[in-house]
Amino acid sequence: MQKTSSGNFFEDFRLGQTIEHATPRTVTAGDVSLYTALYGARFALQSSDTFAGSIGYPRAPVDDLLVFHIVFGKTVPDISLNAVANLGYAACRFLNPVYPGDTLHAVSQIIGLKENSNRKTGVVYVRSRGLNQDGAPVLDYIRWVMVRKRDESAPIAAEEAPVLPTEIESKELGAALPRLDLGGYNFVHSGSRARWQDYTPGERIDHVDGMTVEEAEHQLATRLYQNTAKVHFNQFSESKSRFGRRLIYGGHVMSLARALSFNGLANAFHIAGINGGRHVAPLFAGDTVFAWSEVLARAEAPDRRDVGALRLRTIAAKDRPCADHPYKSGDAYDPAVILDLDYWAMIPR
Amino acid sequence: MQKTSSGNFFEDFRLGQTIEHATPRTVTAGDVSLYTALYGARFALQSSDTFAGSIGYPRAPVDDLLVFHIVFGKTVPDISLNAVANLGYAACRFLNPVYPGDTLHAVSQIIGLKENSNRKTGVVYVRSRGLNQDGAPVLDYIRWVMVRKRDESAPIAAEEAPVLPTEIESKELGAALPRLDLGGYNFVHSGSRARWQDYTPGERIDHVDGMTVEEAEHQLATRLYQNTAKVHFNQFSESKSRFGRRLIYGGHVMSLARALSFNGLANAFHIAGINGGRHVAPLFAGDTVFAWSEVLARAEAPDRRDVGALRLRTIAAKDRPCADHPYKSGDAYDPAVILDLDYWAMIPR
Amino acid sequence: MQKTSSGNFFEDFRLGQTIEHATPRTVTAGDVSLYTALYGARFALQSSDTFAGSIGYPRAPVDDLLVFHIVFGKTVPDISLNAVANLGYAACRFLNPVYPGDTLHAVSQIIGLKENSNRKTGVVYVRSRGLNQDGAPVLDYIRWVMVRKRDESAPIAAEEAPVLPTEIESKELGAALPRLDLGGYNFVHSGSRARWQDYTPGERIDHVDGMTVEEAEHQLATRLYQNTAKVHFNQFSESKSRFGRRLIYGGHVMSLARALSFNGLANAFHIAGINGGRHVAPLFAGDTVFAWSEVLARAEAPDRRDVGALRLRTIAAKDRPCADHPYKSGDAYDPAVILDLDYWAMIPR
Repeated sequence: MQKTSSGNFFEDFRLGQTIEHATPRTVTAGDVSLYTALYGARFALQSSDTFAGSIGYPRAPVDDLLVFHIVFGKTVPDISLNAVANLGYAACRFLNPVYPGDTLHAVSQIIGLKENSNRKTGVVYVRSRGLNQDGAPVLDYIRWVMVRKRDESAPIAAEEAPVLPTEIESKELGAALPRLDLGGYNFVHSGSRARWQDYTPGERIDHVDGMTVEEAEHQLATRLYQNTAKVHFNQFSESKSRFGRRLIYGGHVMSLARALSFNGLANAFHIAGINGGRHVAPLFAGDTVFAWSEVLARAEAPDRRDVGALRLRTIAAKDRPCADHPYKSGDAYDPAVILDLDYWAMIPR
Repeated sequence: MQKTSSGNFFEDFRLGQTIEHATPRTVTAGDVSLYTALYGARFALQSSDTFAGSIGYPRAPVDDLLVFHIVFGKTVPDISLNAVANLGYAACRFLNPVYPGDTLHAVSQIIGLKENSNRKTGVVYVRSRGLNQDGAPVLDYIRWVMVRKRDESAPIAAEEAPVLPTEIESKELGAALPRLDLGGYNFVHSGSRARWQDYTPGERIDHVDGMTVEEAEHQLATRLYQNTAKVHFNQFSESKSRFGRRLIYGGHVMSLARALSFNGLANAFHIAGINGGRHVAPLFAGDTVFAWSEVLARAEAPDRRDVGALRLRTIAAKDRPCADHPYKSGDAYDPAVILDLDYWAMIPR
Repeated sequence: MQKTSSGNFFEDFRLGQTIEHATPRTVTAGDVSLYTALYGARFALQSSDTFAGSIGYPRAPVDDLLVFHIVFGKTVPDISLNAVANLGYAACRFLNPVYPGDTLHAVSQIIGLKENSNRKTGVVYVRSRGLNQDGAPVLDYIRWVMVRKRDESAPIAAEEAPVLPTEIESKELGAALPRLDLGGYNFVHSGSRARWQDYTPGERIDHVDGMTVEEAEHQLATRLYQNTAKVHFNQFSESKSRFGRRLIYGGHVMSLARALSFNGLANAFHIAGINGGRHVAPLFAGDTVFAWSEVLARAEAPDRRDVGALRLRTIAAKDRPCADHPYKSGDAYDPAVILDLDYWAMIPR
């Protein structure tokens, strides 16, 4: 009986296959403290039970991206242990708030398979869901990832590349937002007076600050998420890779950019969904991360007058301040750009 | 509408101005664990609910300096984002115990302004208070800090340098100390048999041990306190500074020295107040911190026979053991000294 | 009155002496999160209150080795501050589960003393117990450690080297295991279908993955355990040692190896006892740890049909993958081996 797993290879996946992932995880106040220590997040809702209570939450919910990383981490041993590259995200929606004490587990479905012409790799499209202890969904997202084949000659049963949405419609947003009483929202404690209507599509905001990343930090983070991708932890093997170094988990960059974005988006307290995301280039320890955002759109949230949705593009760059908003020239990204994240955030009106 | 903040400059402050700071913070058991992991503190009261309960606390209170750092951190975005140097502290008193689950916020008042003769900077004197979810004060302190001007030619409305107390009178101490039953105090579990009357003014105690600091450690700590001072995090910008390196938050040194001081002051379980403090020289990652203390005075605590107060000077030095108590020669500090902290600690009689 | 401790030297110990150790410690969810972040453990029982509840635990218990490290840490200031080497462990049994909120303290008895012929050092044999807030034992183990003499000429009162068991009998195992309902055990969530009867004595399992250790990580861990051994923290003094570097706490290696062993032993959810352990060589920051295990024996657990016991030898090696199971040639360990741990783990039948 095979006791150890070296993960699935491309030919091991089957279209329509459902995979229930291992190691359910109770999220605790300890995780929240570590998340604060790792990124320095300052959004008042996630930082303060009192602030949360004043607008109708039972207590401070767990940061949305911490939920994302924990669910994502569960999928790694089954989906991406033999990944060459994480290619993208789509249709990521947060569906219920998570509080300390909740227990999360994850289930995935293979929704697409496409072998590459070199027959050495293929793209796996997977829809993953995070569920809490009551079976209620907290997160639902699609990612696609390039995975090695074990055997180049192995045949692939059925292939299909799904059509993926490039945008979540605003009417689908807000499921994880309880009915709130924003009369109690303290705009001094939240750190900014800027509301939904103060942001204009096309507006660009430099988040000013920079954060240097250390090996110990991203390793602590990625282990906290029980993510087992060896490229993040194993310098012995990575010293022989093309970079010669440990790669930092892409989600670490997302959380750094999100924390930096507080300076400019302090009231955008909840990520309702991620339309798409791309890890444009790798980040290594010693690099300093900067970020800026563009307001892509403003939308009403379904059935509510208290909050609205902002569609944002947040760009993270390394070793390059973002006052001039580095992005693309033509189709090519500025060489400093490492993350291109397109998401919907909720913000008081 | 300006969305991002680059902090206040000297000419932005006004005498008497009140500033309510952003991001209230619920302190949790997770913060306490991180604090232990960062400094290795071993004072029994803060480490054990059982020990705390045996002397009359409802449970283990949060370390006094953790409270200090969290409150201090809140003030940074408004007070010292453009600081050149943190010059000193005075009249710092701990006023109520803080327990996991309490939510802290901070309010400051500008009590003094004094432009420097070069007109490039000025000194801001600020009294800050930390308050819990019931509005009860937990901390009250004055600090003064040299802040850059945005515009050298900007006029300053009104100036005044306040007269600051150099000492907290002993009768003002102990507000954060519940009525205790020290009959239940276990001097084996506390780690020492030395009580108030065993310490003599003039006595000097080498704390023996040394602790080397890593970049990841001080960054985790300073983010945990949601302190946004960029000199601690941004190697890209600091590589161009006069030191060429990230500066370690001065409060990190205070907590290291306090944790080291357990070896010699194990029963001095509560910092009741800080008379004054000076960050004499910067600390950098890779340096090893040592500490020693001098007993400056011994005082009775108001209305209580169970505990007394010790006035202590704790000196931290870098890369230099403290068996010979390095301090000053004339007015000049020994080049190894990095911290000169004068405070009152409470200790059983 | 001597205020600081420089620890006990060999001649300070007396046969039969009982030492109650300082600083009781309430274990919290924050400690559990840090433990996850430090090692990336994925055993479902310790990760999930829901999983724990489904098999009859009131909630997720604290990882066995976290309990071990906390109890061990308490003994260091009294037992091994002047140790030259930690020589071995025997008869280590886990006796009650520990849950967040429990408070641990430690008591030791000196059960053997044997001066070395050079009269500079001697071996101290100590039996230590960890107790919870109700006085119930959670851990009981023997270790022996070589300790320096303060004064070579000091006489030693009474000497005796105890006979130590090399194995815990299987009938002594399982005291920390509540009566469980393994009908609710979810073999998908646990990460493997392999049960007790699927393991065969002589079977060798490579745990595949490797983990590189950073200075900040082992320092955070060792301080979390309030372990004060200066070799782990003080680069200033260690730069003059024979290694020139900080030594990593041996228990850190045990926890890394245990976390890595999930890949192959996912259902071996509880360490019931440690027959023996040897830190064969030191680990330093920057090294990458790999591990493999051999099944030494399979035994029934007393009075239970739900779980059985596996006797395992887990070997950790540095900078060397373990696919070929490096161990000994003759009496000499492979130069890459750093840990040789012989223990009993409980696993569903």
